[in-house]
Amino acid sequence: MTQPDPILPVLADDELSERAAAVFDDIRDTRNTDFVNNIWRVLANDPNLLEQTWSEVKNTLTEDSELDVLTKQLIYIAVSVAQNCNYCIRSHTAAARALGLTDAQLAELHTVIGLAAKTNRLAQGLQVPIDEAFL
Amino acid sequence: MTQPDPILPVLADDELSERAAAVFDDIRDTRNTDFVNNIWRVLANDPNLLEQTWSEVKNTLTEDSELDVLTKQLIYIAVSVAQNCNYCIRSHTAAARALGLTDAQLAELHTVIGLAAKTNRLAQGLQVPIDEAFL
Amino acid sequence: MTQPDPILPVLADDELSERAAAVFDDIRDTRNTDFVNNIWRVLANDPNLLEQTWSEVKNTLTEDSELDVLTKQLIYIAVSVAQNCNYCIRSHTAAARALGLTDAQLAELHTVIGLAAKTNRLAQGLQVPIDEAFL
Amino acid sequence: MTQPDPILPVLADDELSERAAAVFDDIRDTRNTDFVNNIWRVLANDPNLLEQTWSEVKNTLTEDSELDVLTKQLIYIAVSVAQNCNYCIRSHTAAARALGLTDAQLAELHTVIGLAAKTNRLAQGLQVPIDEAFL
Amino acid sequence: MTQPDPILPVLADDELSERAAAVFDDIRDTRNTDFVNNIWRVLANDPNLLEQTWSEVKNTLTEDSELDVLTKQLIYIAVSVAQNCNYCIRSHTAAARALGLTDAQLAELHTVIGLAAKTNRLAQGLQVPIDEAFL
Amino acid sequence: MTQPDPILPVLADDELSERAAAVFDDIRDTRNTDFVNNIWRVLANDPNLLEQTWSEVKNTLTEDSELDVLTKQLIYIAVSVAQNCNYCIRSHTAAARALGLTDAQLAELHTVIGLAAKTNRLAQGLQVPIDEAFL
Repeated sequence: MTQPDPILPVLADDELSERAAAVFDDIRDTRNTDFVNNIWRVLANDPNLLEQTWSEVKNTLTEDSELDVLTKQLIYIAVSVAQNCNYCIRSHTAAARALGLTDAQLAELHTVIGLAAKTNRLAQGLQVPIDEAFL
Repeated sequence: MTQPDPILPVLADDELSERAAAVFDDIRDTRNTDFVNNIWRVLANDPNLLEQTWSEVKNTLTEDSELDVLTKQLIYIAVSVAQNCNYCIRSHTAAARALGLTDAQLAELHTVIGLAAKTNRLAQGLQVPIDEAFL
Repeated sequence: MTQPDPILPVLADDELSERAAAVFDDIRDTRNTDFVNNIWRVLANDPNLLEQTWSEVKNTLTEDSELDVLTKQLIYIAVSVAQNCNYCIRSHTAAARALGLTDAQLAELHTVIGLAAKTNRLAQGLQVPIDEAFL
Repeated sequence: MTQPDPILPVLADDELSERAAAVFDDIRDTRNTDFVNNIWRVLANDPNLLEQTWSEVKNTLTEDSELDVLTKQLIYIAVSVAQNCNYCIRSHTAAARALGLTDAQLAELHTVIGLAAKTNRLAQGLQVPIDEAFL
Repeated sequence: MTQPDPILPVLADDELSERAAAVFDDIRDTRNTDFVNNIWRVLANDPNLLEQTWSEVKNTLTEDSELDVLTKQLIYIAVSVAQNCNYCIRSHTAAARALGLTDAQLAELHTVIGLAAKTNRLAQGLQVPIDEAFL
Repeated sequence: MTQPDPILPVLADDELSERAAAVFDDIRDTRNTDFVNNIWRVLANDPNLLEQTWSEVKNTLTEDSELDVLTKQLIYIAVSVAQNCNYCIRSHTAAARALGLTDAQLAELHTVIGLAAKTNRLAQGLQVPIDEAFL
């Protein structure tokens, strides 16, 4: 599928600044793969933005912590659907599948997202007052 | 806190139609509590909408299935934050806490939501093309 | 219910500029009521914004045209729920009721909105390709 | 136009489970056409989700009720634009046109959606307090 | 890149109504270019919508006023990213670049948008009460 | 105005962990004020989230860089309106006013936001294809 160019170019490995190259090394080390996907290659145009974003992703998503890594990917996908980010839906669905997410779990994930989307709009549209018990 | 009236009234138990009363019985049985929160009391104005919505919530959220009940609540909260439904954030945070969600897990849930919100906008704003590997 | 002050003040009739006062006269004439609601009183701080917005509302919503006025209010409410504007939900629900919208129709309006919200997220989340027949 | 594959496959008629095939029969009967569009072919991967979603669409959108079928399609389109679902905009615009929606009505639909989108943001951005008359 | 047809056709210059042609003349005069981009060619199907939208764009975006033209384009892009309008992101990024926006400024624009997106969700998700000092 | 409690408590200065207290010291130093607003007092429940968010806000918003600080506040407000974050609209409008934003500029900011919101929906709703010149 042909896709239009992004707003800032997708940088190849030999087009990286020194700071960006260092981040790419850390991405490869952390993920144990040579593959660096396009979001990082676009963010690499601004080393500050690249370093800050990667640091945050690394700290938040790469290891089990209070929540396990698969649960965190499901939360990430849920937000991405609600905010309608095609890139993020696809890249994090790939990540979740690599962590073992089955098609049956994936279907249920979207069932919950769809239900939440619906009841959100009912509660908002009908202006339901919050129960004292929830305040 | 005083809140304005909803678009359709919050019905008390003695204002319910027969069909709505039957749904409320099922809510109380399923959840093993006498408490029926406001969203159901507003939806009760339309028995079709009440029956259909409760049936869906009951089938989707009340038991472990492909995903466990707590994970499903976290997904639900993530969508509710991204769609900005205060009622839903508060009612489902209460539900998740009743299932054992700790404050530390809750803070991490919102850390992931915040990160997703940010990287969603970076991917969308910079129009990052989807990697062939994700298609 | 106490509400916080808006970002720009709610202007009383005796605080209006000449241009704003002329718009208020037209609102009162067009709607055949003395009541001018708060959105106009806030927009009145900027006569350009007030004139342009009122002109657009007057041309679009006040008379039957390709679509009848009630249908247009329902469309307006649907957008307001999906974008989560409490002010707009309440003011346009009032307008729709003044045009004869019944509680049963209102419940169905929200049933359709809720269904659309859900299937929107399913189509987006599962990245359903558009059928050739729809292109 | 080439489109990427969805997250779960588009199932052909001979790939359906028995439950999914029964839903497809009902879709064809209800709509009086042999054509079953892609959203159903993707949802068919999960018979629960397919049955529940089709049941809801059938009950809500296929017959005149409190609101007529065309008005319900317009409401559906309005939500889909506000939530940015390309699939839904295209499939329900096709449905509305099949019900007789003219290009002139379609242009007015989008005029109302655009106006609502704008005044929603003005009311939210300026934090306009809700008039007592609307509470 | 092949793109699907829009909901209403992209009109060529020789398909315009007299009113639409007059708007196109004004677009060309105001922008000092022969190029008229697709949004106007689609809106041209409804001369009312075309005239009103162009009048608003012309009054709001084409000259320095309280805010300078480049700042207004940055605000416009920020909204378009948050609302996920690909067409608008690309057309107004082109407009901003024509006004001198550098790649470094563009990267910072998206850094601010991403940060706002994140802290918006944190404030909403954690239901942070508004400080008295801000009311 | 009474507001409900947040999801995690608003911490007073004497309830802070050592790490949170250090961040508060830096907020006070950087902003040259004793006032620390509620978002930080809620984030303080999770020192990781507090440190990371403050570091990002400090690096992005507190000094002129590629864009000046007022422009960055306007971009931040635009996103907050489009994403409907009341807390953020109010706190960053206060910040922008402290930087000199006038009421006339504020009105124009919202005029641009409202226009973008409208034309976003027109471009999305009518599915306008992106011009080759913008790709």
